[in-house]
This record gives sequence, structure tokens and C-alpha cells, in this order.
Amino acid sequence: MSVFLDHARALRARIDQALEQAVPDTPGSQLAEAMRYALAGGGKRIRPLLLFAGFRAVRKTADHPALDTAAAALEAMHAYSLVHDDLPAMDDDELRRGKPTCHIAFDEALAILTGDALQTLAFELLCETPGLDDTIRLALVRTLARASGLKGMVVGQAIDLAAVDTQPNTAELEHMHRCKTGALIDASVRMGALIGGASESELAALAQYSRALGLAFQVQDDILDVTADTGTLGKRQGADEARNKPTYVSLLGLEEARRRAQALYLEALEALDALTGDAGELRLIAQYVVEREH
Amino acid sequence: MSVFLDHARALRARIDQALEQAVPDTPGSQLAEAMRYALAGGGKRIRPLLLFAGFRAVRKTADHPALDTAAAALEAMHAYSLVHDDLPAMDDDELRRGKPTCHIAFDEALAILTGDALQTLAFELLCETPGLDDTIRLALVRTLARASGLKGMVVGQAIDLAAVDTQPNTAELEHMHRCKTGALIDASVRMGALIGGASESELAALAQYSRALGLAFQVQDDILDVTADTGTLGKRQGADEARNKPTYVSLLGLEEARRRAQALYLEALEALDALTGDAGELRLIAQYVVEREH
Repeated sequence: MSVFLDHARALRARIDQALEQAVPDTPGSQLAEAMRYALAGGGKRIRPLLLFAGFRAVRKTADHPALDTAAAALEAMHAYSLVHDDLPAMDDDELRRGKPTCHIAFDEALAILTGDALQTLAFELLCETPGLDDTIRLALVRTLARASGLKGMVVGQAIDLAAVDTQPNTAELEHMHRCKTGALIDASVRMGALIGGASESELAALAQYSRALGLAFQVQDDILDVTADTGTLGKRQGADEARNKPTYVSLLGLEEARRRAQALYLEALEALDALTGDAGELRLIAQYVVEREH
Repeated sequence: MSVFLDHARALRARIDQALEQAVPDTPGSQLAEAMRYALAGGGKRIRPLLLFAGFRAVRKTADHPALDTAAAALEAMHAYSLVHDDLPAMDDDELRRGKPTCHIAFDEALAILTGDALQTLAFELLCETPGLDDTIRLALVRTLARASGLKGMVVGQAIDLAAVDTQPNTAELEHMHRCKTGALIDASVRMGALIGGASESELAALAQYSRALGLAFQVQDDILDVTADTGTLGKRQGADEARNKPTYVSLLGLEEARRRAQALYLEALEALDALTGDAGELRLIAQYVVEREH
């Protein structure tokens, strides 16, 4: 695990640099400042890690210049969703990654615009991914767009908001999470594989992996919401519970939720058996996801 | 003018159909319902009209199936910006196109998500424009992304919000409008021309036209804000004035603003002289923009 953590740290530095280039310091532009704030370090960068791992699972070569740009695009999309989710009309959170949320550090109007511009930035970046032909670039745009909109992330958030004070069953909860966080996790792996020139059967195996991993990630998030303390978590502990949001823990109980995370972890690993490339990083990420403490 | 208005009406029906297909009626999905509400008729559809006119200015053939999809994408992008601009933290408007704004008809959280999903939809639609090769599709995505983000529409809105109670000069006001509304108007014409297979010199002439037209549109908007009544306007008359927002009228006075709109109209027409195709529709749109009463 520690070799992987070193590798992850190195990748994070690379991703931070790509983000730094994506939104350069622009004196006098409050919008650029707020975008940089929302993108700044502290995140787990799990989506970029999945992107790189997805690439390596289908290609022998170690690297590709498009990975940095695509990683920045994924982080921009993820950061936009966090900025908007934290708004007073949504989850009303004041703390994110141990720092004041965007609308607290700036103001609400600028936070809305910051999220808007970060989403646009994600697509703009993908148009300029170096070293790819336009068909692959367009496939990256399509993958990210499908994962983010009316059939992905945003509808997941809408279902989540509507679910407060309701008692969905496990299938309904899964559907919500599959949209809200699963779709973007799936897109991350797929985009890496597309950059690597994956075949249809490789993409199918990776989709199976991502589906299990995305749910495992969410189950673990729900577990941490009740077991970790605010300092470790970087956000308010028990926040979901306090809002009376349905979680895997409230639905299954803590022990059963832990068993579910473990089962999903094994399901993710199993999907990788169909691949002939080096899926080592994807395995380590799955392990990290269910073992992490924040 | 009346022949053009008939033509515009026919195009609007076509665009409404494309939008109807883009977000089909989805029972049980509040998000889809709110998106359809935000996209529903009543708008001038000026951006799609510019798209079609841009296409015809460079191509002899009357039509292309990609125009409907690209028109829907432009309207989705425009509608998202209106939904977010109307939010309480932004312009706090309750009336738009004579109907309650999205956050009044639904709620604030859903309005934020509706805008988010409409932006995503715009890019998703462009990935699927029929009858084009991937290089042109990607050029459409790039054009729309550049016009909408940190160097286009969103930064214009950020400058606009920061400008309340300040006294910018005409150049600063122009820069703001060039970003806030001009960039998307420019993108509309350019996207039509790209679908039509425009040359670089054609794109350059059209950019000059769009630049003048975009400003003319805004000057006329400011004029109407003080001269039209709420019923004709479909939004609160004098709204900008009441918010103490700088406008061309507050800066130049009503008569000088009218002269400015006229000068920009002539500038737009002049740019079209460089084109060899049929720029008749672009001419009529320019005329409509400075003569409209709402």
C-alpha cells in the first residue's frame, strides 16, 4: 500500500500543476481566484487516480500527455459539483476539506458562478487534450457529459435532495448513488482507457469494476460519516445523519454496511480478471477506497 | 421584415421540437420537468436564428440536420444562464418571459441543478450533431465552451455583479457585455458557419458582424429597460435601473444610446460586405435587434 501511496502523492503533484495551468493566477479576476480556491489541494484526487489507472490497465506504455489535461477536467467537474452542493439552498455546508466552503470564503453569487465556470472549463480542457485525434477527444467530451447531466451526477443530486426525510430502499439508494457519484467515477476510468486506446471488451470489464467501486466508495463514505471525527474528515462529522438523509448505515446498520463494502470490493477485483493489461493500480485504488479513514 | 418574421416563426417551431426531443417528458423526474420549463417557448430564440443565418451566409444549400441539434444546444446554454442569473443570490428576479422564474416555480435548489444540467446538456447535444465529422463536432464544443466560461459569459456575469453601485466607463461596460452576452451571440453565428464549412476569412468577417451585433443587442436592451412597459417586456421594467446597475442609458443618456445602437447596426452590416454567400438573414436579424420593442 505504501508504494501506491507514494505513487498517488506524485500523481497529485502532477494534477495540481495541470490545474494551476488550467486556471492561471489572474490579478483582478475574483472569478479566477474563486475557481483556484475551489480547485486547490486537499482533495483525494480519486478521479484522476482512476483515470491514470484506467489508462495503465489497457496500455503497456507508462504515460500519455493527454492524461494531465483529462485529469484537470475531471477535477474541475468534481469541484464544480462540490461548490454547488455546499450552497445554502442545497446542503448548506460551511466546511469542505478543512477549509471554508466557496460561498463562505467569497459569497453565494460568486460561488454559483464559480461552479458554472468550472463545469465549462472541464469541457474546454477536453477539447485541447494533446496527442489525441479529434474522435478520441470527442469521445472524452461525450463520456464526461453523459456522466454529469440529466442521466448522471446532477440527477443523482436532485434525487438525493428529494430523499431527505424519506425512507428509500437499498435499490433506490443505490440508483441515487450510481448517478450522483458512480457516474463520474465510471467516466474517470473510461476516459483513461479511451486515452489508452481500449477495446470494447476492455471498456466493458472496466465498467463493471467502476460500478462496484463507485458503490463501495459511497458505502464507505456513509460509514465514515458516523465513525470518523470532524478533524479527520475535513467536513462536519454526522452531517448526513443530522440532515436525516438516508445512508447505507441508516438502512443496513453499521456491521452490514461494512460487509457490503467488502463484497463490493471483491466484486470490483473480480471484474479486473477479464483484463490482460496491468490492473495493479486499479486493485490498489479499490483497496484504498474501502480501507480509507477519511 | 414580415417575410423574415414568418421565417423566424417557422424556425422557432423547429427549435421547439428539437428542445422537446432533447429533454423528453420524463414522469417522476422533477429535474426534467424544471429543465423543460426553463426551455419552454416565449424566448426570442435569437441565438438559434443567428446559427441558421450564419450557416446560410456561407453555404448555398438551404439546410443541414446538425442545425437543429446545435440550436437546441445554444438554447440550453442560454436557458441555464438565465435560470442562474435569476436566482435570489444573483439578480433575484421573479418574472421571466412573463412566467415565474425557475426558482419561484420550483425551488432554489432545483433551479441551481436545472441550470447545471442544462449546461451539461448543451455539450452532450453537440457530441451527437448528425451529419458532421468529429473534427467539426469538436470545433462546435470548443466554440461553445470558450464563449461560456472564464473568458466568456460567466466572467461577464461576475463583472456585472461586481459593477452594481459602481460607475464604469463605456469601455468597461462594453467589455462586460462583450463577455456576458456578446460571446454567446458570436458563438451562435460561428457555429452555424462551422456547420456550413466556412473558410477562415468567412469566419473572420462573421466575427466582426457578431461583435457589433452583440453590443447593439445590449444597447437596445438597456434602452428597452427604461422605455418599454413590464407587459411588453415580460420582465420587470426598470429592473436594471432600480438595482443601480450601470447601463448604456445611464452612461450615455437615452438619445446618445439610440445613436450608438444605430452606429453598431451599420457596423454589423458593413462587416457582411466581405461575404460572398447570402447574408440576407443576418442583415434582417441586425435590423430586428435594433428595432425590436421587447
